[in-house]
Amino acid sequence: MNGAESLVHTLLACGVDTCFANPGTSEMHFVAALDRIPGMRCVLGLFEGVVTGAADGYSRMAEKPAATLLHCGPGLANGIANLHNGRRAHTMMVNCVGDQATYHRPLDAPLTADTAGLARTVSGWTRTASRAVDVGADAASAVQAAFEGPGQIATLILPSDTCWDEGGIVGVPLPRPNRVPASPEIIAQIARVIRRGERVAMVLGHGALRAAPITSAAAIAAAMPGVELWAQTSNPRIERGTGRHIINRIPYPTDQAVAALAGVKHVILVGAQDPVGFFAYPNKPSRIAPPDADVHVLARVEHDLPATLAALADLLGAKAPPPQARDTTGPATGKVTSEGLAQSLTALMPENTIITDESVSFGRALYGNMHGAPPHDWVQLCGGAIGEGMPLAVGAAIACPDRRVVNLQADGSGMYTLQSLWTMARERLDVTVIILANRKYQILLGEYFNVGANPGPTAMNMLDLGNPDLDWVKMAAGMGVEGVAVETMDAFNDAFAAANKRRGPFLIELVI
Amino acid sequence: MNGAESLVHTLLACGVDTCFANPGTSEMHFVAALDRIPGMRCVLGLFEGVVTGAADGYSRMAEKPAATLLHCGPGLANGIANLHNGRRAHTMMVNCVGDQATYHRPLDAPLTADTAGLARTVSGWTRTASRAVDVGADAASAVQAAFEGPGQIATLILPSDTCWDEGGIVGVPLPRPNRVPASPEIIAQIARVIRRGERVAMVLGHGALRAAPITSAAAIAAAMPGVELWAQTSNPRIERGTGRHIINRIPYPTDQAVAALAGVKHVILVGAQDPVGFFAYPNKPSRIAPPDADVHVLARVEHDLPATLAALADLLGAKAPPPQARDTTGPATGKVTSEGLAQSLTALMPENTIITDESVSFGRALYGNMHGAPPHDWVQLCGGAIGEGMPLAVGAAIACPDRRVVNLQADGSGMYTLQSLWTMARERLDVTVIILANRKYQILLGEYFNVGANPGPTAMNMLDLGNPDLDWVKMAAGMGVEGVAVETMDAFNDAFAAANKRRGPFLIELVI
Repeated sequence: MNGAESLVHTLLACGVDTCFANPGTSEMHFVAALDRIPGMRCVLGLFEGVVTGAADGYSRMAEKPAATLLHCGPGLANGIANLHNGRRAHTMMVNCVGDQATYHRPLDAPLTADTAGLARTVSGWTRTASRAVDVGADAASAVQAAFEGPGQIATLILPSDTCWDEGGIVGVPLPRPNRVPASPEIIAQIARVIRRGERVAMVLGHGALRAAPITSAAAIAAAMPGVELWAQTSNPRIERGTGRHIINRIPYPTDQAVAALAGVKHVILVGAQDPVGFFAYPNKPSRIAPPDADVHVLARVEHDLPATLAALADLLGAKAPPPQARDTTGPATGKVTSEGLAQSLTALMPENTIITDESVSFGRALYGNMHGAPPHDWVQLCGGAIGEGMPLAVGAAIACPDRRVVNLQADGSGMYTLQSLWTMARERLDVTVIILANRKYQILLGEYFNVGANPGPTAMNMLDLGNPDLDWVKMAAGMGVEGVAVETMDAFNDAFAAANKRRGPFLIELVI
Repeated sequence: MNGAESLVHTLLACGVDTCFANPGTSEMHFVAALDRIPGMRCVLGLFEGVVTGAADGYSRMAEKPAATLLHCGPGLANGIANLHNGRRAHTMMVNCVGDQATYHRPLDAPLTADTAGLARTVSGWTRTASRAVDVGADAASAVQAAFEGPGQIATLILPSDTCWDEGGIVGVPLPRPNRVPASPEIIAQIARVIRRGERVAMVLGHGALRAAPITSAAAIAAAMPGVELWAQTSNPRIERGTGRHIINRIPYPTDQAVAALAGVKHVILVGAQDPVGFFAYPNKPSRIAPPDADVHVLARVEHDLPATLAALADLLGAKAPPPQARDTTGPATGKVTSEGLAQSLTALMPENTIITDESVSFGRALYGNMHGAPPHDWVQLCGGAIGEGMPLAVGAAIACPDRRVVNLQADGSGMYTLQSLWTMARERLDVTVIILANRKYQILLGEYFNVGANPGPTAMNMLDLGNPDLDWVKMAAGMGVEGVAVETMDAFNDAFAAANKRRGPFLIELVI
C-alpha cells in the first residue's frame, strides 16, 4: 500500500466519503488511489474557490467534514478566500494539499511556494507529512482536528513522495470531542441577570441557530421581560420558517446595528462574539452594543449550545410561544423589489429549501420578510469574503440530494466563482441560482457616498459593472446551465416555480 | 491631505500611473483619492486573479511597476496565485491592500485575516502602514522595493484609518538600484571555461532574453565550439522572431529536458537557475543537467545581463551570425494540429505581437516552430500557477496599446480567470484570445498514464472537462467579447486574420 492509498482508506474509515477536488500533477497518485479504492465521491471544481466553498457548504449541511484535494501552494491560495469563510463558520474540513516531493522542494522549482505558511492563515490545524508510513496516522489526526471545538479547518500537506512511496498504514479513527453544556453555575448566573428585568440582548451564533435551541431562546424571550433575541449578522446555518421560531439578525450597516442594540444593558453571548462592525468608519463605534452594556458569556461555540439553552429555559420556567405560522400572502407582482422577492420566495419555494445567501445590498429585505416561508435553512458566507454563494450551493446540494437549493446571488460577488455553474451542470444538482443583477458594486457605491462626494468617472470605473453588462444567461449556457432573464416579479414567479420543479440546475437573472 | 491622497500623489511622483483594482469597503478613501487626483489609470478586474496577473503582464511589458488595489486578506488571497507567478518572473509590482482600521483589527470582525502573513508568502517586501503621516514615505519605499534586484513584489497593507486620517505627506521618490554587469574576473573565468571546447549549455533567463543579449549569446554559440544556448522552460518575456536570433527553451517534460542536456560538461547560468524538473517523479532525476556537469554562474538576475553577455562575446571575439529570416511557408490548412497552429500564427500574426502563452499540453509545438514569425514577444507564466494567460494579456495590452496581443490559452487553465474577458471588453483591448479547447486536463491525463494504469471513472471524473462541454463563445459573449468556434485550420486562419484587423478583443475557440 502506498501513502496515497493509506490516505484514502483512512479518510473513508473516519467517515469522510466526499472529496471536492481540483488536482494537479503532484496529486496523481492520490487520484489513482481514489480511482482504485471504492467509496469516495469525487466532485471536480474548475477553480479552487469552488472546491473549498463547496466543501464548506457540504460540511454545514452534512454535519461532517468533506475532504478537498488541492494542488500545491497556489492551488491552496486560490481556495483561501472560501477557507477564510469556512474558518469563520467553524466548518469541519480536511484539506489534502499535494506538494513538491520532500527532496525536490529545496531545488525551488517554479511551483514551489510557502504552502504551510498559506495553510496556517486559515487552518486550525496544519501538518506536512514527511513519510508514507505516517500518512495514514496524519490523516486520522486531520479528521480528528476537523471535529475539534465546534469544527475547524485541518490542512494536511502531502509531498508527492509521501503519496507514491510504499509502506502506507491505514490510520485508526481517533476519538472526537464530546460537547458539554455550560456549567450549571454559569447557567444560574445568567438566569439571575435575566431575572433583573433589565434590557438584555441574547446573541446566538453557530450551533445555537438550529430549530430546537432557537425555540428555547424564544421561550426565554417570551417569558422574561426585557429579553430580545438576535442572531449574529453572518451565520453558517439558521433553521427557520413555518413551525419554527423567529430570530432576526443584527443588521449589517453599523448605524442600524447600533440602533438595534441601543439601550441594551446586558449582552448575553451564546456561541457568538460580542457584536462588532464589519468595518470601522470614522466617527462610528467599532462595538455595536452600548459602551456601558455588560457582556456575559453563557456558552462558547464549542459547548453543547442546544442543551445549554434548554437548561436555561427550564431554569427560568419558560415555555415556547406558538411557532411561526405560514405566510399565505402569495407571490408579489409587478416591479422587482427586495420586499417583493421575499414575498415570492416565501410563497413559492419548496419545503426544506436550503437558501445560500450572498444577496449583499439588494438582499437586505429578504431574510426579515421570509419568517413565514416553508421550513428552510438559511446559509450565509461568514467571513465576508465574497464569492461563496454558488460554491455553498454546490456543497449543500451534494450533502442534501433530496432538498432544493436556492442561491440568492449578487452579480458582482457571483463573478468571483462563476465556475460553480459548471459543477452544478455536471453533477445535475437541484440548484436554482437567482442572480440579483444590479450591474454595479452597489454596496460600495453606498460606502462611497458615505465617504463624501458623488463618484467621478475614475471611481465609477471601479464601482460600476456595466459597460459591458454581464449576460448571466449566456455565461450559464456556456457552462451547461439553462437560464432566463426576467424583469418583473410576474416573470420571476413563473421562472422560479418552473425551476424548482425540474431536476438539475437553473439560473434566473433577475434584473433589478 | 489624508493618507490615501498622499498615497496616490506618491505613487504618481514615483512614476506609477496604472492601477489594476478590485476595491472593497476598506479602500473607499483610496478610491475617492484616485477620483480626486488626476493621472492614475484605474482598470477594474472582476476577480483579484485578473488584477494581479494583469499587473504582472503590464510590468513585464512597460518595464515599470503597476499598482494594484486589493481588499483585505481574502482579496489579496484571491490574487496570490498570479502574485506567485509574478514573483517567479521577478516582476515589479506595488500592491496596495486595504485592511481593517488599526483599532478595529483586535476586535476580529469577520473579514479580519492574517493579511501580512498572506502577503509575505509572495512578496519580497511587505509593510503594514501604521499612521497616515507615514503612508507617503511607505509608498515611496514600496516603489523602491519593487525595483530592487531585477524587480520584486512589494506589498503595502493600509489599515483604513491610515487612509482616512489627515496629515498625509507626499513621499519623496527614492533611488533605484543601479544594475552592473558581472565583474571582468568572472567574465574572463567563464571565457576560459568556454575556450576549453567542452560541451557547454548556456542557460539564459529573465533580462538575458531580450533581443540584444540573445544576439550576444548567439554570437558566442556560433563562434565557440561546444556551446549551445537554452532559455529556461518558463520565462517572463523573450524577444524573438524575424531579424532576431533563435533561442530554444528547455523542454517541460523531465525526460525530454534530460535528453536535451545529456552529455553537457558545463552549465553556465545567465540570470537563470540551475535547471530542475517542474515536479519530481519516482525514478527520475530532479536536476536536469548530468550529475557530473559543473555549474558556473556568469551573472545573476540582478546583474546587467545584456552588458555582461556583450562583454563576454567581445572577449571571445564572437560575431553575431545572420539573424532569423522570415518564414514564408504560409498558413496551414485542414486538420487542427499544434504544428499547424504554429504555422498559421507564424504566417498571419502582425508585427510586434505580444504572445501570452498558457497553451500547456497542446502548445508544446508552438514556440519551437515560430522562430520565423514576425518579431514578437513571448510571455509565459513563470510560476506554474495556471490561470494567468488571459490576465497577462490584459496587462500587456494596457502597457502596449499599439501592439496586438495574442493569448494562447488552454481551456482548463482559462477557466481560472475567465473574468479577464470582461476587462478586455470594457477597456476595448486589442487582444485575440485563442482557446485551445481539448475539453480535458490533458496534461494531467498524461501524468496519470505515467503513474500507471488507464484512468477509471473516478479519475476521469477529475481529469475530463467534458460533460458538459464548455462553450467559450457563449461565455465570452456573456462578458461582452465576440467570438467564434472553429474546427479546421482554414476556419481558424480566416477568424484569426479578421480578429487582428479589428479593434478590441475577439475570442477564437479552437476545438482540438
